Formats: sequence, structure tokens, C-alpha cells
Amino acid sequence: MHLDRFRDHPSLAFADWSLRGVGQVVFQNNSLSGLVILAALAWNSWIYAAICILGVISSTATALFLRADRGMIRDGLYGFNGALVGLALIAFTSEDFRTGAVPSLAMAVYLICAAAFTTMAFASMGAVLAPHRVAPLTMPFVLVGWLFLFAVLKFDAIDAGPMAKPISPEQFSETVPFVLSTWYEGIGTSIGQIFFQDNWISGYIILLAIALNSRICAAMGLMGAIVGTVVAAVYGGPEGAVRDGLFGYNSALTAMALGGVFLVLTWRSVLYAVFGAAVASWLWASVAIFLKPIGMPVLTSTFVLVTWLMLLGQGAFKALVPVSPPEPEAPEENRTGKLGGEKLQ
Amino acid sequence: MHLDRFRDHPSLAFADWSLRGVGQVVFQNNSLSGLVILAALAWNSWIYAAICILGVISSTATALFLRADRGMIRDGLYGFNGALVGLALIAFTSEDFRTGAVPSLAMAVYLICAAAFTTMAFASMGAVLAPHRVAPLTMPFVLVGWLFLFAVLKFDAIDAGPMAKPISPEQFSETVPFVLSTWYEGIGTSIGQIFFQDNWISGYIILLAIALNSRICAAMGLMGAIVGTVVAAVYGGPEGAVRDGLFGYNSALTAMALGGVFLVLTWRSVLYAVFGAAVASWLWASVAIFLKPIGMPVLTSTFVLVTWLMLLGQGAFKALVPVSPPEPEAPEENRTGKLGGEKLQ
Amino acid sequence: MHLDRFRDHPSLAFADWSLRGVGQVVFQNNSLSGLVILAALAWNSWIYAAICILGVISSTATALFLRADRGMIRDGLYGFNGALVGLALIAFTSEDFRTGAVPSLAMAVYLICAAAFTTMAFASMGAVLAPHRVAPLTMPFVLVGWLFLFAVLKFDAIDAGPMAKPISPEQFSETVPFVLSTWYEGIGTSIGQIFFQDNWISGYIILLAIALNSRICAAMGLMGAIVGTVVAAVYGGPEGAVRDGLFGYNSALTAMALGGVFLVLTWRSVLYAVFGAAVASWLWASVAIFLKPIGMPVLTSTFVLVTWLMLLGQGAFKALVPVSPPEPEAPEENRTGKLGGEKLQ
Repeated sequence: MHLDRFRDHPSLAFADWSLRGVGQVVFQNNSLSGLVILAALAWNSWIYAAICILGVISSTATALFLRADRGMIRDGLYGFNGALVGLALIAFTSEDFRTGAVPSLAMAVYLICAAAFTTMAFASMGAVLAPHRVAPLTMPFVLVGWLFLFAVLKFDAIDAGPMAKPISPEQFSETVPFVLSTWYEGIGTSIGQIFFQDNWISGYIILLAIALNSRICAAMGLMGAIVGTVVAAVYGGPEGAVRDGLFGYNSALTAMALGGVFLVLTWRSVLYAVFGAAVASWLWASVAIFLKPIGMPVLTSTFVLVTWLMLLGQGAFKALVPVSPPEPEAPEENRTGKLGGEKLQ
Repeated sequence: MHLDRFRDHPSLAFADWSLRGVGQVVFQNNSLSGLVILAALAWNSWIYAAICILGVISSTATALFLRADRGMIRDGLYGFNGALVGLALIAFTSEDFRTGAVPSLAMAVYLICAAAFTTMAFASMGAVLAPHRVAPLTMPFVLVGWLFLFAVLKFDAIDAGPMAKPISPEQFSETVPFVLSTWYEGIGTSIGQIFFQDNWISGYIILLAIALNSRICAAMGLMGAIVGTVVAAVYGGPEGAVRDGLFGYNSALTAMALGGVFLVLTWRSVLYAVFGAAVASWLWASVAIFLKPIGMPVLTSTFVLVTWLMLLGQGAFKALVPVSPPEPEAPEENRTGKLGGEKLQ
Repeated sequence: MHLDRFRDHPSLAFADWSLRGVGQVVFQNNSLSGLVILAALAWNSWIYAAICILGVISSTATALFLRADRGMIRDGLYGFNGALVGLALIAFTSEDFRTGAVPSLAMAVYLICAAAFTTMAFASMGAVLAPHRVAPLTMPFVLVGWLFLFAVLKFDAIDAGPMAKPISPEQFSETVPFVLSTWYEGIGTSIGQIFFQDNWISGYIILLAIALNSRICAAMGLMGAIVGTVVAAVYGGPEGAVRDGLFGYNSALTAMALGGVFLVLTWRSVLYAVFGAAVASWLWASVAIFLKPIGMPVLTSTFVLVTWLMLLGQGAFKALVPVSPPEPEAPEENRTGKLGGEKLQ
């Protein structure tokens, strides 16, 4: 919040909006959070940090060129899908998923266009969802990511390595036992995988970045990662996928969205978020198995699916207190604003 | 109707709502119809009857916990998708599709959560469709069913047998001749397959249950099953799939929806329903062939698809008389209410 | 425009509406354009010309029977999806894609029902999209085409040859060099493929038909075909697919839609259309690779997808000038009507 003075700074404003765009991946409208997240990426691989910046700049600049609503640009809302698309295109076309690879010129142009396209997809999905007071979340990233990833595998001008990353639970051994490090690495990497970082320390740094802006969000994100990981373990998910954070990243995002960002935090919405995190973990496995024959990763599709299915009908459930207007602010403010009276139980 | 006195009964009300939920699978807001349907299931397999009750209770109780609209809960509208999801999860994970198998504890928890999730999906789809005056139909069941079925096949804690049931016309022999029993069994089983019952006698009992509340609905359901079966036979569908009722169950539901439930019964809407039943039969084959490589059953997806595509634009066609308000009541009442004057032709 | 006198002619009106339906495939509400397009089809194969007529008659007559809005019927808007579905069903079930084959009786009934079903799908999608001021485009054709194509491959009564046409870039040799004829044939065939015509001369005749009604549309269509073809070549698309016009037909339609038909023609919307044409070319490859395992052609799905994603959110971008009301007229009129004052930049 103390960084608001850069928002209208003549030369630094664009950097401020872009950093907020990085933060908005995890619902944080805060440029310091964005900066710490970039540091977490750089800790794992400077390539990913650079690509994240390239993606967020492309989609934010496109929004400026098309003269989109300035308030939304300043909040970083046109940036986060571009950042994610950039990361995904590098992650799934590099020989080493963990560090990524510097893209060719053709790939860089492709990536910049994909990130720009998320801006149009974001505006379109926003327009369709507006009457239902639900946000597009990361659906522009998921859809554009899938569409642009497929073609890459067959275009001559882009050298895509074989997909190095297992994308489905079937690809992991079922006999590896769970040990202590499975848990603390799996939970941390769950947060890291939101940004495609196979690095549990980066994950905990990202959690710290979230806490800088909202401790409720950080707590819900951690809770979601734990629920997703535990549910997967109880239901026999393979150790390697659990340790890789694959069962947990959709759950972490779902828990943040339902537990404070789009629903006011009450004990019922916490239960709702726990339920959503469990469902997101099961459905990660489902969607992964569905997509594997065509070689596509799940991305954050189950987070979007579960959150939409649990939010679009929120008006029908009097037990839930919707955040209104539905722009994500820190859950702390949502709580203060809404729970003044009879709506709270 | 004579059972309305149980709707607000202090201890029996919940049972009444749940029975109506069972009836709503075939559009019957009538607890006696629900009871007879449960008997039809028990005739085939007591396991399915019990699972149907478990599913409808889970989704109805979730609606109560979330404080959904009481009128809709009392009409059983929050129950029918839960009942169907429960049945589908057992049907496609049991070694013997015909009788089903008692679920393990892990599977039971999973099934209860899936049924609860249909309540949220129903509210969400209802909110999106409300401006178009079209109901979610069984889409919550189809979507949640697909999503929860996939994961089952790979989770260690749930012992899924090989899918015992052919799910696509390709899986049947093309040389078996049609005989008399193909027809009366195929038409009866078409009604039975709505509830996953491979039993033609159960199918006719379900038809009786529908007739208890609405003879128009029963007639249209029978007509749809006949149209679906005949179209499949004319177009060379294999005898085994016809006898199994696979070509007919989507047609039966489509004919009921278009012929009286959502459109006032006129000679044009009967033609419309016949056309819809034929299309639903063709598209069952299409969707079955599309889904087979990933091992998924069609469920009632073609019923929903055809009915939505024929109802969402109803306002554009002056030849059709929409039922308003669009909540399904018995077609007899719709007819009385709407066709008083110049709208009838 | 000079043909308007046939629109209400007692015996010729239906022919006029149907010809406009043929023209509406490429956004031309002009019966002379429709007639020249039919001639372009007949130049390649009289079978395709006849099937195109059968399709457009079926869907237009269905709209009449259901008493749809007469103004829309007269503009050919209920006809173009039926024409395309008819062509697609013949193209992908004939032994020779290039000339097509005369359908059997069972296939003809099937085709007529599919075309009739597009009328209902068009009304439904139109109702859903109406609040967003975006048209269904050819989505009814794409959806109904996919659904009806699948079943064909398995029904005994319809003799479907092996799909003769490569439907994905992988199916072409990667070593054939680009020559001069690759370019002029590829660009012409791009326009031809909109109507499934593997014939570059037919393509240029269709371009002429468009120019008869709107020179802006013809120019944008040609530009789109060029952009699609060049982008594919730069990114290593195989020569055979480029020469076949497969990379270009979605780009040509996208450029027409964004450059004048649904957005007023300004230098920014021309840039927008160029960007859309490039994305449509990349995504043709993506969707083709996605659909190939299940043997489905892309149809015009990437045109619809890209255009929707770039138009639904148009209200968010002040740099774009929407055409209002959103019914496609000639871009020349849109330009005159809208760019009178301060909105033009």
C-alpha cells in the first residue's frame, strides 16, 4: 500500500503496473509483492524471471495501446495472464523444465503475441462474466496457453524439446514411499508451481510475498496447498507428483479465491474453501488424465473450473457473503467492509 | 399432489424433498413417483437404490447447509443431479455394471463430495442460464460425473474395475439380427438407462412412475424412446446397443423436455420433440465415438446439448409457446395455463 | 443492392433469401454475390453447388416453419450455416474430397436434418450472445458439423469413405520446397476452403463475388489469406498445407470480420485484423493437431474462436469503434455511418 505513490509516477508508473500484474497471479494488487515474487523466480532461474517480465509487459502494453480502462491497468489486472502464458510457453518447450531455456527469436515473437492475445481474451471473458459478478481468473491464460502450446509442437521454426515434465499422475512411480521431505517440499512446491517453479524454496518465498500484502491470503494459500497435498496422499496419489506440488497448486489458488478474496471470510467460507481445495486436488488428477493423450498440461484449469462452479451461483446461497464490488482487494479490507451487521453470522 | 402434506412435515419433509429429487430426474415433482422409481431400481439391484438415496441426500443436505432457496429444495431441484452422480460413479467403477458394487469408505466419501459439488454446479449453471429462461437440466451431473470419474481410474485408494460396460456403438457386434425382443427390451431399457439400469422391466416401472404424475410426460418419454430406437435401427446401429437402450435414453429425456415440460404441448412442439429425439439418437453415437478413446461414457450429455440448442433460442421462434415461468410442472398444467387464447394454434 | 426488388417477390423471394444465405458465409447480404459463389462452386464440382443449395434451403425453410424473424430470414442469416453443414458432410464422407460424391438417400435425410438443426443452434447462440452484441458467426455450423460428422463414420446405413483429406499439418511432407505457385494457389485456395473447395480459381471467383457487394471486404479477405499464408510459411508450416489453403481460410474470415464488418474500419482496426489473421493461422495448426487423433477437421472453429475473443470485450477498448447495430452490412456503410465525428481518430 505504501508503494501507491509510484502508480502515477511519470517514468516508473508502467513498472509499478507490471509488478502489480505479477502480484495479481496470486491476487495481490501490490508492486512489492510482485517484486518479491520475481526474486523468488530468479532464485530458481533468471530465465523465468526475465520471461515473466516480458509476458507481463506485453499484455499490459497491449491494454494501453487498445485504450483499456486505466484503473484496471493500474491494478495489474491486464498483466497477470500475460506473465503466466510467457512462463508456460517456455516451461513446456524447454529441454529442462526446471530452469527453462532462452527462446529463439521466432519463439519470442510468438510468446509476445500470445501474451498480447490474453489481454483481448481477458476483456472478452470479463464482459461475459460481468453480469454474474465473477472474474475471468486465469482462464485467459489457460485457454491461450493451451492454444499456443499445441501449435508449437509442430512448427518447424520453433524447436520444442520433448516435453520434459510429467504432466499426469500416471507418469510417476507408485512405489516410492512418502517421507518427511515429501510433505514440506510438496507443500512449498505447490505454491511454486503456480509460477511453474519446481523449487520448494521459491514457493515459500512466494508465500512470503503474498503475506506482505495480505496475511489472510497467505494463510489460505498455505491451507489450500496442505489440503490438496493431504487429499492426494490419502487417495493414493504417487509420491513424485505430491512432492512436485502438482496436486497442490490448483488447491492453493482455489482456497485463496474462496477464502477471502471473492467471498468474505467467515467460518462457512473457510469450510467452503477447504471443500474447494479438496475438489481441486481430485480434479487435477482427472484433468491431467484427460489431457495426457494429447500431451497438454493442466495449467490452472481446475482452479478456474472449481472456483467458477462455486462462485457463479453464490447468489443462490444465503450462507455466503459475496465481496462487492467483485474486484479482488485484500481480504482484510473485504472483511472490514462487509461484516458490519446482520449479514455476518 | 395428494402428498403435498408431507412437504412441511417436521420429520418427514426431508424425505419428501429427497423423493421429489429422485422424481425430478425425469421432471416429476412428485414424491410418490420418486418412491416408485426407487422400487424400480431395487427390482434391478438394491445397491443402486441405496446409492441413489445417498446421492440425493448429499446434494439436498448441501443445499440446506448453504441456505439455498427453500422452494427449490422442496421441489427436489437440488437433489436429482446428486442422485445421478452417485449412480454413475458406482455404475462405471463396479465389476458388474448391471448390479453395481458396494463402495469402499474412500469411494463413499468421494461420492458424497461429488454429489455435494453438483449442488454448487446447479446453482452456478442456473445463474448463468436464468436470463435465457432455460434450466441447467442434468448438465451439473454430466460435468461433475465426467470430472469425478476420470480421477477414480487412477487413484490407488479406489479400486476401479475395468469399465465393464460398452460405452460406444463400435463395441457391439454388427452381425446380430434384430428380433422382436430387441424392440420391447430396447425401448424399456431406454427408460431404465436414464438411471443406469440395464433392465427393461425396471424401465417400464419407471415409465409407470412418470405416468402417476403426468400421463403426457410418460407418453412423450415412451415416444422419445421409440424414435431413438427406430432411428438407430434405420441408420444401422448395432443390435446390442439398441437392445441396451443406449440410443434411446437421451431421446426419451429430450422428448419429455421439449414435448410439454419446457414448451407448451401443441402439434408443433410434438413435431419439435420428435425431431429432437431423432437428433439426440444420432448424437449419442457421435459423442460416444468422440469419448471412447478417453474411456468416458456419454451420460446424458446429448440430451442436454440438444435440448439447450433447441430451447435457448425459443424466443426467436413464434411457432413455439414457451412455458413461463420456466420451472417444470406437469405438462397438463402448463397446457391449461398457457393455451387459453390466441397463442394456441 | 439493385436486387432488392426480388426480396418480396411472391415466387422468387425464397430463392433471393437462399442466395443471400450463400453470400452470408462471407458476410455478403447480396443475392448476386451468392449466385456468383454458386458458380464458383460449380466450376469446381456441380455436386458441391447442388449440396450448397440443398443445405441453405433446408435451414431457411426450417426458419420459416418455426416462424423466425422475417427480416433475418430475408437477410439470409438463417441460411449460411445450413449451406456449410451440407458441404462439410459431403466433403468429409466422399472418397474424393475435391469433387464430392452424390449422397445416398439416408445421407441426404441426415444432411437435411443437420442443416435444419443449425437453424435452432443459430437462434440459441444468437440469444446467448445478444447481450454482448456479438454474432454466432459460423459456430452453429462448426458445432453441428462436428456432432453430425462423428456419427457418420460409424453408422452402417451411410457409406463413409476413409477421410480422404489431410486435416492436420503433420500429414504433409516437410521437405517440399515453396515455389511461386505455392503462393498464388495457396492464397486463392484459402478463399476456396471457406466453402471446402480445393480449387484456387474457384477461390478467386469467390473473392470477385465478395467484391461485387463490398470492395473493403474483398480486400480484407485477400489480406487475411495473405497474412495467414505468410505466417505459416515463416513458422515452418509444410508447403502442401500452405498450397491447400488450410492455414489461410480462417485468417481470411477473421480479417473480414474484424476489418470492417463488426468493427468500423480505422487504421487501428486494420492492425487488429492483421493480428487476428496471424493468430488464426497459428491456431489452425493448434486445433488441427488437437483434433487429429479423433479424426475431426478444424472447420472454421479458429475463425470463430479468435473473432469472439477479440470482439466480446470490444467495449473495454476505447481504441475500437464497434459497429452498431451489430448486424453485418457492407463495411462501406458502417464506415459512413459511424465515423462522422469525434469517435474517429
